[in-house]
Amino acid sequence: MRLKPVDDRILVEPIEPETRTPSGIVLPDAAKEQPQMGKVVEVGTDEEVQKLVRPGDVVVFAKFSGTVVKVDGRELRILSRSEILATAEL
Amino acid sequence: MRLKPVDDRILVEPIEPETRTPSGIVLPDAAKEQPQMGKVVEVGTDEEVQKLVRPGDVVVFAKFSGTVVKVDGRELRILSRSEILATAEL
Amino acid sequence: MRLKPVDDRILVEPIEPETRTPSGIVLPDAAKEQPQMGKVVEVGTDEEVQKLVRPGDVVVFAKFSGTVVKVDGRELRILSRSEILATAEL
Amino acid sequence: MRLKPVDDRILVEPIEPETRTPSGIVLPDAAKEQPQMGKVVEVGTDEEVQKLVRPGDVVVFAKFSGTVVKVDGRELRILSRSEILATAEL
Amino acid sequence: MRLKPVDDRILVEPIEPETRTPSGIVLPDAAKEQPQMGKVVEVGTDEEVQKLVRPGDVVVFAKFSGTVVKVDGRELRILSRSEILATAEL
Amino acid sequence: MRLKPVDDRILVEPIEPETRTPSGIVLPDAAKEQPQMGKVVEVGTDEEVQKLVRPGDVVVFAKFSGTVVKVDGRELRILSRSEILATAEL
Amino acid sequence: MRLKPVDDRILVEPIEPETRTPSGIVLPDAAKEQPQMGKVVEVGTDEEVQKLVRPGDVVVFAKFSGTVVKVDGRELRILSRSEILATAEL
Repeated sequence: MRLKPVDDRILVEPIEPETRTPSGIVLPDAAKEQPQMGKVVEVGTDEEVQKLVRPGDVVVFAKFSGTVVKVDGRELRILSRSEILATAEL
Repeated sequence: MRLKPVDDRILVEPIEPETRTPSGIVLPDAAKEQPQMGKVVEVGTDEEVQKLVRPGDVVVFAKFSGTVVKVDGRELRILSRSEILATAEL
Repeated sequence: MRLKPVDDRILVEPIEPETRTPSGIVLPDAAKEQPQMGKVVEVGTDEEVQKLVRPGDVVVFAKFSGTVVKVDGRELRILSRSEILATAEL
Repeated sequence: MRLKPVDDRILVEPIEPETRTPSGIVLPDAAKEQPQMGKVVEVGTDEEVQKLVRPGDVVVFAKFSGTVVKVDGRELRILSRSEILATAEL
Repeated sequence: MRLKPVDDRILVEPIEPETRTPSGIVLPDAAKEQPQMGKVVEVGTDEEVQKLVRPGDVVVFAKFSGTVVKVDGRELRILSRSEILATAEL
Repeated sequence: MRLKPVDDRILVEPIEPETRTPSGIVLPDAAKEQPQMGKVVEVGTDEEVQKLVRPGDVVVFAKFSGTVVKVDGRELRILSRSEILATAEL
Repeated sequence: MRLKPVDDRILVEPIEPETRTPSGIVLPDAAKEQPQMGKVVEVGTDEEVQKLVRPGDVVVFAKFSGTVVKVDGRELRILSRSEILATAEL
């Protein structure tokens, strides 16, 4: 199934934060942090947002922002342009 | 009975999420997830929303968005255009 | 007494939902659902809303929307145009 | 003392709902309903609101809307134009 | 000390409601009502508000509206123009 | 350290209210009132706010308005122009 | 990893407040105050915000404003221009 975001929305695959502490302990699910970054999967039809990001870009957003959607078992997020705080060069 | 949504509203028949776990267990009603997708039944008279979706299209929306209405025993939803997050190609 | 709604407001007589279950049991008052449909009684002076609905039309609205007013013993509702979600053909 | 409402405000004398039940029992104060109608006493200087209502007209408003003011022992209300839902012909 | 309200604000000296009941009993402080009227002390520089009221006028406002300021031991209030509901002729 | 407020903001040094009662009793900290006046320290670059107040002026604001910042041990406040209710001539 | 703030946003490295009391006692983490200042790391593409601040500038903001992001182990903040209250010359 393929989702096409509407207007200035962006479909993002969240990048889960590290699930190990620096000393190598694997964190249980409840202690995991919410993701704040994601890889852009699809961009809406709005021209401005298309200039801002392309599929493959990494974007930064506030925890819990956007709407979580399940697509073929993966948890993606649909964000509005105004929820994109920064782009990241890894 | 036939409903005709007003302005930029869209009448949608929600697609219920899977009610079986991957291992085949049938989920009880209380454990069911809220639908996030639906098939468009009728589109309002607004030109922009008519360009965006047509009857039969599948749209994505946030859980609990829109207004639930019962039509001839079926639970449909009336959404505003701004509540449509994405369209889906199955 | 006759009420004339102001601007884009609409006076509606709610259509009470079925008070019997499919198997014929009469529901007590506390189990009744809130109405979501109503018959238009009077339309405000706003031109746009006059194009949208006429007295006698059936409209759909969210539960608890509008303001309940008692007119000669009947419970009517005054809705704003923005609270009209759809029109219904019975 | 005479009050002159400012801008699009309207000074209204509420019409108290019936304090007797249909069978003639006088209701105690705590069981009285909030008024939803009132007789216009004074209209603000705004031209639009002056076209809408005149002193002596009866208007409909939501319960608890407007600001209650005591004038020479009477409880009046000052409403904004947007709080006037309908006019009534008794 | 003299206060000059900014823009469309108005400095008002509240008129305390009667502290005696009609039968002459002096009300204790806790039973006193909040003032809803006041005498205008100073008017801001905004032209519209200067046309509306002058020092010495009596204005009506909702209970608890505006900001209470203590000036030389007196409790005055600074109101915005939009908080002035009516003017009063005593 | 010197702070330069941005846009129409104003840096103010609050004037603490009297900490003695009229009869000379020194009030404990918990009984002190929040300041409502302050001396302007710096004014933002916005032309309108520069016409309104200058460093050294005394301004009136609502209790708890603005943002408290600590500068070299002093507790100052940064207010927006809209939080300035009046100017004071002592 | 390098973050580039979007539009009028600013990436800031907070300056932690003193963690010692004037008498030299080291404060425990729970008693530490929230930072209110930060050094600008990156500025968004918006022209106005680029005139206002440059990387290296020190800005003042309200406690808890902006969004905390972790970049390579450091806790940075992304602020909107409207959250910048003042600039500081140390």
